Amino acid sequence: MQIIQPKILKGTREFGTDDMSKRNCVMDTIKRIFSTYGYGPIETPILNPAETILGKYGGEGDRLTYNFKDNGNRSLALPYDLTVPFARYFAANWQQLPLPFKRYQIQRVWRAEKPQKGRLREFYQCDIDIIGTNSLLAEAEVARVITNVFTELGFSNFKIKTNSRRLMNDIFESFNVPKDKAMQSIRIIDKLGKIGEEGVLEELKKLGVEDVKNLLQTLKPEGSIEATLSRLSEYDTSEIETLVSYCKALQIPSEILNFDPTLARGLDYYTGIIYEVISLENPDLGSLCGGGRYDNLCGLFCKESFSGMGVAFGFERIMIAMEERGAFEDIQPNAEVLVTVFDEDSISSSLEIYELLTSEGISAEIYFEVDKLKKQLKFADKKGIPFVIIQGPEEKEKGEVMIKSMKSGKQKSIPLTQLINYLKSYEQS
Amino acid sequence: MQIIQPKILKGTREFGTDDMSKRNCVMDTIKRIFSTYGYGPIETPILNPAETILGKYGGEGDRLTYNFKDNGNRSLALPYDLTVPFARYFAANWQQLPLPFKRYQIQRVWRAEKPQKGRLREFYQCDIDIIGTNSLLAEAEVARVITNVFTELGFSNFKIKTNSRRLMNDIFESFNVPKDKAMQSIRIIDKLGKIGEEGVLEELKKLGVEDVKNLLQTLKPEGSIEATLSRLSEYDTSEIETLVSYCKALQIPSEILNFDPTLARGLDYYTGIIYEVISLENPDLGSLCGGGRYDNLCGLFCKESFSGMGVAFGFERIMIAMEERGAFEDIQPNAEVLVTVFDEDSISSSLEIYELLTSEGISAEIYFEVDKLKKQLKFADKKGIPFVIIQGPEEKEKGEVMIKSMKSGKQKSIPLTQLINYLKSYEQS
Repeated sequence: MQIIQPKILKGTREFGTDDMSKRNCVMDTIKRIFSTYGYGPIETPILNPAETILGKYGGEGDRLTYNFKDNGNRSLALPYDLTVPFARYFAANWQQLPLPFKRYQIQRVWRAEKPQKGRLREFYQCDIDIIGTNSLLAEAEVARVITNVFTELGFSNFKIKTNSRRLMNDIFESFNVPKDKAMQSIRIIDKLGKIGEEGVLEELKKLGVEDVKNLLQTLKPEGSIEATLSRLSEYDTSEIETLVSYCKALQIPSEILNFDPTLARGLDYYTGIIYEVISLENPDLGSLCGGGRYDNLCGLFCKESFSGMGVAFGFERIMIAMEERGAFEDIQPNAEVLVTVFDEDSISSSLEIYELLTSEGISAEIYFEVDKLKKQLKFADKKGIPFVIIQGPEEKEKGEVMIKSMKSGKQKSIPLTQLINYLKSYEQS
Repeated sequence: MQIIQPKILKGTREFGTDDMSKRNCVMDTIKRIFSTYGYGPIETPILNPAETILGKYGGEGDRLTYNFKDNGNRSLALPYDLTVPFARYFAANWQQLPLPFKRYQIQRVWRAEKPQKGRLREFYQCDIDIIGTNSLLAEAEVARVITNVFTELGFSNFKIKTNSRRLMNDIFESFNVPKDKAMQSIRIIDKLGKIGEEGVLEELKKLGVEDVKNLLQTLKPEGSIEATLSRLSEYDTSEIETLVSYCKALQIPSEILNFDPTLARGLDYYTGIIYEVISLENPDLGSLCGGGRYDNLCGLFCKESFSGMGVAFGFERIMIAMEERGAFEDIQPNAEVLVTVFDEDSISSSLEIYELLTSEGISAEIYFEVDKLKKQLKFADKKGIPFVIIQGPEEKEKGEVMIKSMKSGKQKSIPLTQLINYLKSYEQS
């Protein structure tokens, strides 16, 4: 028979047990924080009627997304992001939901792009949204959630950059930027990090914006929120001021929240406060989280309009940053104990020890063959299992087990009745 | 603008926060048990080169699976089950893996079928496998894992039915069933539950099997494993006997493990022990878990042949059974506390209380508007949030908060400093 090459598609990934232990550990932390702040999980289908996915992207949808006709000639598509499936879910269900509705969603999405470094065809997104309120309390809460996520994941030097689209538009207006060029100007300013001040000035000039140097000067942040606010005193900065006071009440450290009037974010649906998170230890990774206030997320799917606030955490980038930092060195992906099998006659005793351990919630494995002890120890070593239990006829006779630490190589005999306490006291230390 | 209907595809499902809380609760229990027994999680791609998915199904693959050509004319397919993606993963990685390799996998799969009651196009599967050993210890361990899963999920009357394909083939041989009719005979006997003894007899006769009445009589289980074994004493029943002794050492209650020589399971790749789990409280749901020993799972993808043992838990059926039993009545999907906002001036104090609660890990929400208290309480009620915190100017003056139980309707003022202890002591009770 012809062997099929066990390949995966370029731009997709498979995760073994080591990878998954790390990913689950990060996801569990994130989910716990979301849930502490009252965000509930939802999950939307992966196979969707194509129009519900493509609608947002106009003529581009066909090229950007994975879409196809099934055997029944139905047009189907895989989600490109979690925003559109959430908008569809909300439009279909809002009448039954408690409003404002707070949800989180962690699922895979698909991009029909040529895969490159950092650009995958299949990857996870991780979104939270509060929909159905205009209150700036939503923005403040999201900033608190962001702060907790990055702090608990061990990021020690990160910033939440914030700005207001409303304020940005006011400033544009005062510089006579025509309304129809505002969004283009925002997209140009969004490239500040990539093309530098010179590049931005040039592109803005090309667009026909006047007095660009002064405009950029006005947008530049000062050393503190207060100083930036006071320089912008001729504009209505009440939105930022209220946000800052709420964030203070929520005890978000002032060094974390940065007001940066140049912060733009390229998407056109933001209408108020926007956020972007960067880690100063991993500046090359770019934004690790971003989002903002929107006014009409569900417009594609229902007549009612709902204002909301949401951010997306860049799960894959967070994983890269944590991997770079060595955050996963202490993770123990496999069992804590290997129960060896001394000989054919002792299989039942080994099974009894195995049952004793697992019934107490101690993660364990039993070796499946009657192999030489050396081979059994090698298996424990390969899997990074820290403890090995050996019970030969002598130990059995005395009601004892030999416990061997794979790290130190030391071993000692203890009564079987003390085994659980011995291992549990080790767990706690 | 034309509104897009916010529909989902028939045969797919979306899960709101209530559903997800239940599903996560079940998944977390299952994962914890798997991990206690040393099974590690893996995850395989959803978009796959079509040949890696279709290979197993011969000419049927195209009809059974979701497959399509992408923009670059690559043939892609979504997984039909988790067995094939696992076989591919193992074939690609076994040289780096510690053998035997124990993994669990919980992911969605897709069936290009017409959806009917109980048949979805998109649903979860939940598999465990031990691959790379012939030892019956693997079978025994899997029976222990199954026992723990169903016990911890609160199934009080379930059976693990077991049989040996080897033994079944021996019995067929003694009844002169031709080898090329053995698999067909197995498929017919597999329908015993559906078409009854009469139906099976008839179909076997039609197939050309002789002495069918006696054959079926030989396969019928007695009241206990020992009795059945002793009736089959002319056959080699050592496999079952060893399994039973191992299961006894693992303290699997004897009323749970049932030896049933009529147990067939339709798939042709089983070669030894097979399992099927039924819940006597939910007999109409059929098998809640099933699987067995196979000899060459990865044959499609590599030249080496590996023996393994694995079962699939019917996650969606387990959910239905638990729902029927009312297992989720006590689940609290939303936050435990709602912090209300008394008036515009007290927003900051409310935020501070909110921060106090969440920083102690108490799941909470803050109400986002300055609405009438009645409306805020209604929100808590709709979300099933059990406690509401109110702090008016009077309470604030005294450093107190009013805590209201939504269930009893009772409320009392306590010093803010005692709030955390008050709620934590409630959590424990």
